[in-house]
Amino acid sequence: MTEFELIAKLTKKLPANQTVVVGAGDDCAVLDFGLRDKLILFKTDSVVEGIHFEKDAAPEKVGRKALARCLSDMAAMAGTPTAAVVTIGLPGNFKFESIEKIYEGMGVLAKKHGVAIVGGETTTNPGGIFISVALLGTVNRGRLILRSTAKAGDAVFVTGELGGSSTGKHFDFEPRLAEASWLADNFQVHAMIDLSDGLAGDLRHILKASSVGAELLKSAIPVNRAAKELARKNPSSRTPHRAALEDGEDFELLFTLAPGESVKLLDAWRKQFPSLKLSCIGKIIAGEGIIVRDKTGPQKLNAHGYVHFA
Amino acid sequence: MTEFELIAKLTKKLPANQTVVVGAGDDCAVLDFGLRDKLILFKTDSVVEGIHFEKDAAPEKVGRKALARCLSDMAAMAGTPTAAVVTIGLPGNFKFESIEKIYEGMGVLAKKHGVAIVGGETTTNPGGIFISVALLGTVNRGRLILRSTAKAGDAVFVTGELGGSSTGKHFDFEPRLAEASWLADNFQVHAMIDLSDGLAGDLRHILKASSVGAELLKSAIPVNRAAKELARKNPSSRTPHRAALEDGEDFELLFTLAPGESVKLLDAWRKQFPSLKLSCIGKIIAGEGIIVRDKTGPQKLNAHGYVHFA
Repeated sequence: MTEFELIAKLTKKLPANQTVVVGAGDDCAVLDFGLRDKLILFKTDSVVEGIHFEKDAAPEKVGRKALARCLSDMAAMAGTPTAAVVTIGLPGNFKFESIEKIYEGMGVLAKKHGVAIVGGETTTNPGGIFISVALLGTVNRGRLILRSTAKAGDAVFVTGELGGSSTGKHFDFEPRLAEASWLADNFQVHAMIDLSDGLAGDLRHILKASSVGAELLKSAIPVNRAAKELARKNPSSRTPHRAALEDGEDFELLFTLAPGESVKLLDAWRKQFPSLKLSCIGKIIAGEGIIVRDKTGPQKLNAHGYVHFA
Repeated sequence: MTEFELIAKLTKKLPANQTVVVGAGDDCAVLDFGLRDKLILFKTDSVVEGIHFEKDAAPEKVGRKALARCLSDMAAMAGTPTAAVVTIGLPGNFKFESIEKIYEGMGVLAKKHGVAIVGGETTTNPGGIFISVALLGTVNRGRLILRSTAKAGDAVFVTGELGGSSTGKHFDFEPRLAEASWLADNFQVHAMIDLSDGLAGDLRHILKASSVGAELLKSAIPVNRAAKELARKNPSSRTPHRAALEDGEDFELLFTLAPGESVKLLDAWRKQFPSLKLSCIGKIIAGEGIIVRDKTGPQKLNAHGYVHFA
């Protein structure tokens, strides 16, 4: 059973109540507390030593990443973050200065996005550093964007450049909150997700939730310089395009746009966010799964995110 | 530096914003999202293998405890819980059935209190099970009860019986949500906290936050049968009264009541909650620290929670 099948099985049985608009399974849960114009967004995410960062990572980078992951999830719902609570599990020999640095890294990013940190629980975790952040925010009732509302005919867009984030971007990425808000305010974005599991994996989340397929144009997929350099240094490894499809933790926005809005969006984007690339990489189609088209023709991506060349 | 000094130092520097009514340092954070009658409560808490439960503990009890601790914190603010998100860190060899049981134990308690579980993050934690729960709820604007508002002259009350919770109650305790709501609706409760660090430790949190002291009557402190049995089996160990003062994880309510309301409360309580003991154990006084009075006279409790007999 994969992580996603496990979560799917468990979340079917979770208790709900009348406040729940969207429960587990999207980037954030959506709750209706009776606010006139807004719904509440609620999300938790964690970073663990040895899984999401190495033992020798700078603690301020680890703290920043723990919050940034949640902010990226809130961006994927076109939400505005408000307040976070933090649980930090620490091995017994941990130094106070390092805890302070974790909070410092988190605090700089929180201030940048107007997020209050309103609770900090510290406990012992014998196995290493474990940070869990829960984030609360809001979204205007009219502009909530889910994973499940992509439609055949939509164009597929991605921000930034993908792949190779393990060389540094997984610590330094910028949650795309301003970009997502602007998109939701000005365009008919049908579905959106942030890229944490890799382009192929996260696109598949949208496709499954929306019961559609996608066709991507290989040459249109934006490849990060880090992925190109990794391939150059080690020619026997994956191609940069495969890295762009498969690598996790890009934390860019992947979204689908109503047909006919693509040219208008690309024009407006260049003026609004001149330093961030936006790429139209394909379209949503009826059916299921991902087809990647290159000069040799269409090829199907298999379930593990790899291009199946058979 | 103790855990509390550490948290105090860190929380002074945390970023805030205009939604924050009460930040880190009380049982829950309090946020104003612009709801007409209500404020939002936000809390995170965690349970860790080897710290809050042993390796062989039943997973459904561990799941229940993880949520129950947060519910108890919400009770301490006279709040109503609404929705929770859960992060579970698991060692690599963990069985799916056990994850299901963690959620089952949590789910039964969640349903009982009308709480939706709206997000479940599962990750690897090489050192053992680590569960972090974040809980969202509301409280009526007019009846928010903090730790910092005890006044000299208040009576000090505690629900239930204290001590010896490590023999089982730390898993099976009932969060006092209904009791706290009823108290806030019907009486002038000035300050409240739930007992997680032990009567002496948690009373000290109220006293420090409110800049007051307390005088307790030793014979009035309600002692749990578990604490009495532990002392009987091992006569060289602490007395049952010391266990009641010092043992953690009772998860009862400790609160201070406006002068003159005590008799009325005790009468009404017996009718409303006939199966749960309520004890008046002393009073709030000017000054600082805790004095315990027994037949030999008043004695001061020292900083570590022990009666100082010198």
